Formats: sequence, structure tokens, C-alpha cells
Amino acid sequence: MFKKILIANRGEIALRIIRTCKEMGIKTVAVYSTADAESLHVKFADEAVCIGPPPSNESYLKMSNIIAAAEITNADAIHPGYGFLSENSKFSKICEEHNIKFIGASAEMIERMGDKASAKATMKKANVPCVPGSDGILESYEQTEKLSIEMGFPVMLKATAGGGGKGMRAVWKLEKLKDAWDSARHEARAAFGNDAMYLEKLIEEPRHIEIQIVGDSAGKACHLSERDCSIQRRHQKLTEETPSPFMTDELRNEMGLAAVRAAEYIKYEGAGTIEFLVDKHRKFYFMEMNTRIQVEHPITEQVIDFDLIREQILVAAGVPISGKNYTPKLHSIECRINAEDPYNDFRPSPGKITTLHAPGGHGVRLDTHVYSGYTIPPNYDSMIAKLITTAQTRDEAISKMKRALDEFVIEGIKTTIPFHRQLMDHPDYLAGNYTTKFMESFKMEAPVED
Amino acid sequence: MFKKILIANRGEIALRIIRTCKEMGIKTVAVYSTADAESLHVKFADEAVCIGPPPSNESYLKMSNIIAAAEITNADAIHPGYGFLSENSKFSKICEEHNIKFIGASAEMIERMGDKASAKATMKKANVPCVPGSDGILESYEQTEKLSIEMGFPVMLKATAGGGGKGMRAVWKLEKLKDAWDSARHEARAAFGNDAMYLEKLIEEPRHIEIQIVGDSAGKACHLSERDCSIQRRHQKLTEETPSPFMTDELRNEMGLAAVRAAEYIKYEGAGTIEFLVDKHRKFYFMEMNTRIQVEHPITEQVIDFDLIREQILVAAGVPISGKNYTPKLHSIECRINAEDPYNDFRPSPGKITTLHAPGGHGVRLDTHVYSGYTIPPNYDSMIAKLITTAQTRDEAISKMKRALDEFVIEGIKTTIPFHRQLMDHPDYLAGNYTTKFMESFKMEAPVED
Repeated sequence: MFKKILIANRGEIALRIIRTCKEMGIKTVAVYSTADAESLHVKFADEAVCIGPPPSNESYLKMSNIIAAAEITNADAIHPGYGFLSENSKFSKICEEHNIKFIGASAEMIERMGDKASAKATMKKANVPCVPGSDGILESYEQTEKLSIEMGFPVMLKATAGGGGKGMRAVWKLEKLKDAWDSARHEARAAFGNDAMYLEKLIEEPRHIEIQIVGDSAGKACHLSERDCSIQRRHQKLTEETPSPFMTDELRNEMGLAAVRAAEYIKYEGAGTIEFLVDKHRKFYFMEMNTRIQVEHPITEQVIDFDLIREQILVAAGVPISGKNYTPKLHSIECRINAEDPYNDFRPSPGKITTLHAPGGHGVRLDTHVYSGYTIPPNYDSMIAKLITTAQTRDEAISKMKRALDEFVIEGIKTTIPFHRQLMDHPDYLAGNYTTKFMESFKMEAPVED
Repeated sequence: MFKKILIANRGEIALRIIRTCKEMGIKTVAVYSTADAESLHVKFADEAVCIGPPPSNESYLKMSNIIAAAEITNADAIHPGYGFLSENSKFSKICEEHNIKFIGASAEMIERMGDKASAKATMKKANVPCVPGSDGILESYEQTEKLSIEMGFPVMLKATAGGGGKGMRAVWKLEKLKDAWDSARHEARAAFGNDAMYLEKLIEEPRHIEIQIVGDSAGKACHLSERDCSIQRRHQKLTEETPSPFMTDELRNEMGLAAVRAAEYIKYEGAGTIEFLVDKHRKFYFMEMNTRIQVEHPITEQVIDFDLIREQILVAAGVPISGKNYTPKLHSIECRINAEDPYNDFRPSPGKITTLHAPGGHGVRLDTHVYSGYTIPPNYDSMIAKLITTAQTRDEAISKMKRALDEFVIEGIKTTIPFHRQLMDHPDYLAGNYTTKFMESFKMEAPVED
């Protein structure tokens, strides 16, 4: 087992990893930027090394400084957390070259899964459903028509040079295809000087449902069921839950087996997540793979009763997994508490926390690196806490979340707590009736005076 | 279901009950003494009524004031928590007379189980093992010898007027019985002017292991396994765990069935606890029954995945229980954090909490009514928090507790956190090798400078 792990990250995930290391009797090294000197991950680690000033490419992304910190402190492994260098193949390789175990995917795996085209090609080979499409540029309208009929309407025409919705058309029936083809090409030519088009199946009422997997060095993998992360704002997840209210036992089994098939096909080692889009007919399509721990991993931990960071460390040390797949027996929800003003377009709200009172009691978990008197620096991601509630049913987990949100006091800055309170009262959320489009129509109600 | 519950208690248990009521959509009424005006249970309840000044018999024990508060606020039930009026048969009866549901045992049940002799007689009838003894005063040495041989050595001779160890003799073999009989009677006569004696089986290396039960109004009962509460100081429990490290599947089954038999025999309604002494041969003996929720109930909740306060409320409202017995699949430990100085004979240390930082993360639960800036009044019990950790194994739960104790910052007062840290490092505790005598030989090591 490792003797000392350097955590190449900050914030709640750095603290999260330190906690598990402590419980496993492994020494820890925190690294920090000058902006994070007062952070809890620095206080709770056995050793701490300053690796530079903000912004991140002067510190948390500065590989040479991090490797130097590991060498000075004699760390035999590095845990990268999420974000920063966690999916950087060069860093994974440099660690390996310095004989420091990178607790994450190999450089080769990160490259293979990091490139969308190569990831999709690999998944197709592993017999994992991918969004059907034209496999490249469309050669003619006739080819487009033929392909559209094959994959079935609705379809999506997209300009290869596209962006911001330009040169993009959703087409719901064959009769509309020719008009769409002409107008999309025209628009793309005008906007980008390039009218090359490709075709994809349009996913109706898409949900973002991901499967947590763990693979070991012997090539065995298992899945730990799903997380529904459809409540997103500008591709940022706001809250997640497991099980998904849209899930059926049959679909979970199918998606779980597909994820395990994918992981075993690529001989994936460590914890990873296969993200899928699921359409209204409960057909699922591979979206991407994350070769790292995810922000929302605690809800999985709550329903499987074990520690995923511990699992990552064990697998990295060569311990084989049991191979058992897990089905949730409980329901767990995570709300990401961000230092943002939900009444003001979620504008970041860094600054000093003058008062913090943490919720507690039965079924409540809080993962946070902030405390009363802590000043949130303006340089980083605005997430300051993850509030997780767990209960026997979804309704109870929601009631518990509402109760915990009511107890949570953070003064001095704005937070997304009021947003989560309103979300937990929203009829569509309560009914489990939401897609990735949910936030497009969500409006905050006026603040209530306490 | 009840519309509004008045909580006739204070501190963490009042808050604990309010939390569950909120989650169930039931309105709450807090009552408080003038010393508790700033307490969290007052802030988090829907309504709060001041019921008088300290000491408790002017407020928390003042039945007329509590009933008046319930009537003024239209509460349809009262939850008494633990301590105070929770096992007061008169209060249970008064509630009934005022048509307010008492969420606890009936007056008759409290009386029956509150009196040691009647409780023991009842348990014998229910075929629950009790500590063998003389059933009253010994008539002669000959009778004493006969009884001793029947129940087997070692035995305990006790003066009926005894106290402080006077007139008490442990006897390990027959040859020593006559001398013990003579000297104990002599001592009792000298000390109390009364040499009447009774005899009990001596329980060797006793452990305090209790079984949580729940019974419903239809007379059905189930058990939720055990809690080991052997770590006690002057009969005050300091830490509890489930499962007991001394437990076997066979013993759990036997003790669980005995507890269910007891509960069903007396038609027990609600949550209750049957406390047993277990000797070194794993024979168990009824000690007493608690007809209320207990301080240490959270460790049971952690391993059975449901809320016992919710269960109490449901049963009180007439909802039948499933009747399923539960065996722990996880391990959970509770440390009672008291405002006491463990380096100074656990002397109470009330006062203002200047800083509080709560531990968090995976497997950590904190139940507390105190916060940064709160002043602990000198009038009540010194328990200020319950820190609970849960993991897959005992070793992991202990590691998690050590980590959580390290993170827990309470400044301004002395607490028992240093005691728990030392306990969690004690070789006998780590080995699960402890009895109710453990604290008699435990010595705090000198404080370590941080």
C-alpha cells in the first residue's frame, strides 16, 4: 500500500481525499496556491507545499512544481481529484516516468477516451450504443436522405464548422429535410464560409444518466448503478440523484452491462464514469467517458455503503475488485452549493463567509472545505459545498434535503441554496419529470423575506 | 397523522425530533426554559413557548406548563424525548386525559417496567432470562448454601440496606461462603443496623448489551439488533457501538427473540430498549427496560437505514410495523461529546463556544444543538453533541471516528473529545475486549501539545 499520497487539487475534493487517506493510515501532502493558504485541505494534510500563485496554470496546472513537491516530500502516489490534471495524459505519463503512481487512468487511456472520435469508435467496437450519425461529412443530399430514413426521424443536421446553433437544423419528418438541408448549408456558408454538413440522430427529451464503473488491473470491471445528472445549467450539473426517477430495472441492467462491457473492452483500471444520453423511449447512447472521480460520486457511495476514493486507492495499489455489480437500495440526492447569486443569473459571489452553520442529523452528509471566517478566492470554481441526503425513498430524500437546506446558514456571500430550495418544490422535479432542457425554462421566484 | 407535535425536551434530542417532524410535514412546537432561549431547537421549531426558568422542575418537568403550551398551540401529540418526562407515568396519563397523544409508553406500561421487581417478575413470566437470585430476604445460612449450589458459583451476597459496597461479598467457591455470610452480616449490622441479606448470581466480566425493539398497537414486535454500551463511567454511557464486538449470530438471535418475546408479552407499543447484562460465557440476563427513545439510537439507524423517531411517530399514529427483524450489515459507533474536562475527572465545563467546526464527509453524522457563539447553560446535562461514524467494518468505523474527532474543533470550553481520541487508540478497545469495568482502570494520558 502507498505510504504517502500527494493530492494535486484543492477545495472539497482535496479534503475528501485527505479524509480517506487518514482513515487508511496513509500520509498526505497537500499542494496549494498562495490564494488557498487558509484552505482546510492545507490544514488537514500531514504536509503542505505551496506550488505558486493563481491562476491555475501557475500552480494547480503546473506539472513541474507538482512533481517537485512529490519528490521533495517522498510521496509515492498522486491523486489528481477532478478537473485540473485529472484527465491530462501528459501528467499521467510524467508521473509514471518519475515512478510515482498516478491514481487515475494511464496516458494511453486518457488519450483514447479524451478524443471524442476515438472514444466513439472504441465504444462501437465494444458494442456500446452510440448516437447514430453520418460518420463524417455528408457527400450529397441523396446520401443524407438515405441515412435519415435508415436511422429514423427526428434527425439533426449540423455544420462541421458550426457553433452557437448556426448551421444546425432539427428535422422531424422527411418532407422537411430538403428545405432544412438547403437553408442550413446556406447559413453555414454565410457564417463560416464552409457548408460541410454531418448528420446525427436527434435525441428526444434527453436525460443525462451516467454509470459509475470500477475496473481493476486484472481487467475485471463492475458497475455501481447510475446517477441522473440532467439538471444542468450551461452544461454545469446543479444537482444529481440516484436512482434516476426515469430508470427501470431492465434499463439499469442494460446500461450497466454496456458500461461494464466498455470498461472490460478497454481494460479500464480505476474508477470511471460512462455518460449516456437516454431518450424518451429509454434508448441510451454513449456520450463520453470520464476517466476520473466525479463531483457527484458521494450519492453513489451513500447507496452502496462504501468509499469510492478508497476503492480508487486500492485498485491503484493492485488490489483486485470483487466484480459485484450494485443496485441502489436507498435514494440519494446531491445539491451543489455554489458561491453564486441565483437571483442574478448565477453570478459568482466570492468573499468572506462571516457565519456558517452546517446542517446535520439522520441521512445528511456535507462535504465542504469552507468554514466560518474563510474567504472564498475569486480565482477558482465557485462550488463551496456538496449537501447530500439519503433516505429509503425519493420523497423522503427530497424532504430531508429541504429540511437540511433550511438549516444550512451561510452568511457574507450569496449561494445557490435558494435555488435548490425552489427546485425541491418544483412540480416537475417532484414528479421526476425533467430532462437536460429543464433549466432552459426554469425561473427563480422572487426572494422570500425571512 | 398528527398535525402538530410539541417536543417536551431540549438539546440535541429536541432538535432531532423537530428534524424528523419537518421531514414528515408535521408542524412542531418547542418548549424552552429561560436558560435555553438561544438554543437551536427553539430556532428550528415552527412555534416556541417559554415554560419557565431553570431548574428543570420549574420548566421541563413542570407538567401543567407543558400541557398548557400544548393546548395553547393546539398540538395533538407530545414527544417527550429521553430523560425529563419520558418515563413519567403520571405525565403519560395526563396527556391521555387531555386527549393529547403521548409518543411513548402508556402510564400502565411505564409503571410496570419502571419498578424493578415488577419488571423482573414480568420478564420471568415472558420466559426472558433474569439474574438468578433469592427472590427476597435469605432466611438462613442453610438456605443460602442450597441456593448458591443451585445457581452455581460465583455468587453475590448483598445487604438489603446496603450501599457503597458495604455488606456486599463476591463469593467464588462454596468453602468461602460461610465466612462471607458471617462477615457481610456483621458489616451490615454495624453500618445499617440491619443484617438482612439477599443473594444474586455474580455476572462475570459483564457487558451491557441492549436490544432495540419496536412494537405496534396490534401487539406485534420486532427487534433491530443490539447496541454495546459497556463503556460507562459511573453508569453514564460514554460511547456505544453496533454490532457488539462480543456478539455472535447465535447470541444475537437468542437475545433478539427474547426481547421480541418480552415486548409481545407485555403488548409493548412504540420504540423501547431491553437492557441485558451478558457474562463472559455469553449468557444474558434482563437488567431493565427503557420505555423511550435512547441517546444512542442513531447507531441503530445507521445500520438499518431508517429513522427511529419517524417509526415512533408512525406507531403512535397507529401505523402497523412490518415485523421484520434487522441484522446490522454495517458497523456504527457513537461518541458522546460532553462539555466536561476529561483531564480533570470529567468536571463539567459550561460556557461560551467561541469556535465550532463540524467534521463531515463520508460516513460521518453529527447530532448537535450547539453552534459557534452558543453559551452552554450550567443547568443541564453536559452532553453537547453525538458524533457517529459508520463503515463496512469495525476497524474502518474506528478509523473514521479518529479522523472525525481530529477534525472536530470546539473552542471556549473543555470537551470529552480528547478522551474519545485516547479511547480509540486503547488496545483493549481496539480488540473489542471491554466490559462495564473498563473505565475503572482507564487513565487519561497527559495532554499532547498541538
